[in-house]
Amino acid sequence: MDHHAGRPRAERARQLADVLRQQITDGGFPDGTLPDERVLGRRLGASRNAVREALALLCREGLLVRRRGVGTTVVLPKYGHGLDRLTGLAEELSGRGTVTNEVRAAGEVPVLPAAIAARLDVPAEAGGVYVERLRWLDGLPLSLDTSYLTADVGRAVLAGDLAGRDVFGLIEEAAGARLGRAEVAVHAVTADPDTAELLRIEPGAAVFALERLTHLADGRPVDVESVRIRADRMTLRATLHRGGPGQVPARAPSVPEA
Amino acid sequence: MDHHAGRPRAERARQLADVLRQQITDGGFPDGTLPDERVLGRRLGASRNAVREALALLCREGLLVRRRGVGTTVVLPKYGHGLDRLTGLAEELSGRGTVTNEVRAAGEVPVLPAAIAARLDVPAEAGGVYVERLRWLDGLPLSLDTSYLTADVGRAVLAGDLAGRDVFGLIEEAAGARLGRAEVAVHAVTADPDTAELLRIEPGAAVFALERLTHLADGRPVDVESVRIRADRMTLRATLHRGGPGQVPARAPSVPEA
Repeated sequence: MDHHAGRPRAERARQLADVLRQQITDGGFPDGTLPDERVLGRRLGASRNAVREALALLCREGLLVRRRGVGTTVVLPKYGHGLDRLTGLAEELSGRGTVTNEVRAAGEVPVLPAAIAARLDVPAEAGGVYVERLRWLDGLPLSLDTSYLTADVGRAVLAGDLAGRDVFGLIEEAAGARLGRAEVAVHAVTADPDTAELLRIEPGAAVFALERLTHLADGRPVDVESVRIRADRMTLRATLHRGGPGQVPARAPSVPEA
Repeated sequence: MDHHAGRPRAERARQLADVLRQQITDGGFPDGTLPDERVLGRRLGASRNAVREALALLCREGLLVRRRGVGTTVVLPKYGHGLDRLTGLAEELSGRGTVTNEVRAAGEVPVLPAAIAARLDVPAEAGGVYVERLRWLDGLPLSLDTSYLTADVGRAVLAGDLAGRDVFGLIEEAAGARLGRAEVAVHAVTADPDTAELLRIEPGAAVFALERLTHLADGRPVDVESVRIRADRMTLRATLHRGGPGQVPARAPSVPEA
């Protein structure tokens, strides 16, 4: 391709890796196997060397693995988590895999950290509940979810099936009300040693660190979460509209919660 | 805090780092300076040692820097990029900083890579346009944006002010039509050497790799992008609703485009 000619090798590799990542994300290799370098090169209009370097980048990203005699395969299918609608993980992945939860901590916190109390809009002395769960999907860890909940809602959540259910469903039952909105901030960070060990990835691998403040329908904040998600297993997805969410054209109603 | 007692040190550090990150993201340290370890420990209900280890994690993440005699400061304010509405970067950051674009490549591609042609729903032989820009905000690189555009729209975009404007605005002028929707997939990856050099970060630092397929209002896809964003400078933000975007309550109309 003309626009690749004469450019430094690392740059060409990066550009080809982008094209391949798009194709992988898009489900372009349904059986998880990529064609050989020669075929890829022809499709991409690039040399075998350039293709090899692009594949090496995607291997380093953890997206692909290359094995002699086996070829180049997609390591894991990445699950998409929608950023369009407030859903719990199990709800989101319903039908695509079974989420199980390893409850690592679940108990009352007599005094909330000041920063958490401020976000929950309660005095620190009101206390709350802390829940930490490692979430498994099809036998592999997917995310580490930690939540601080307000005391009233949190106590009821503690009595619920934390091993089997999304916290969102437990909150709605506890509060007798639907959740309303959540403000989400997504960071990309490298895994600290403790996170790496729990999620079974290399320290320094990229993970999503998602912060989420969830409110009941009446606006009251009830749940402050920090979620670390294995970025080699999960892609965050959204459909954005030019006019903004207030001007979204009518669409079929969302699938009701199971 | 009871729920931290007796847990391994790395775990306690991670939990405290989560609370501090929430507070930093939330604008809890408006002058960018954190109090000393003793004060933080009191606020967090944790020992000085535990606080020190949490701060070390956030330093490694690139969020904080600690200097003797100066204390602990937030390295850079992170800009929020909304995932609620389809906006260009300059449009999104309007009023918060000046985006300038270093045009690294802009030209016609006689034959599109097959994966790109498939996403743009045109034959590879129809060709297209490739644009690569390094985007600077307030004198620091923020993202590396690469776009493949369909031939008709792309040629008109090439004639536009690529150094000064968002591509979205140029597409809308070129097409004489508003953009419609975009499908976005967000990955977290570690920076490859070429990206690291361009974005002036360490190889292996976490970056967002965002893939975006943008359509005109009539549904025709026109722009396939791969965007790498410095994760130490940008947080992706969204407000999610339990009912889904089709059931969002009425809100004030979005700010009109400048």
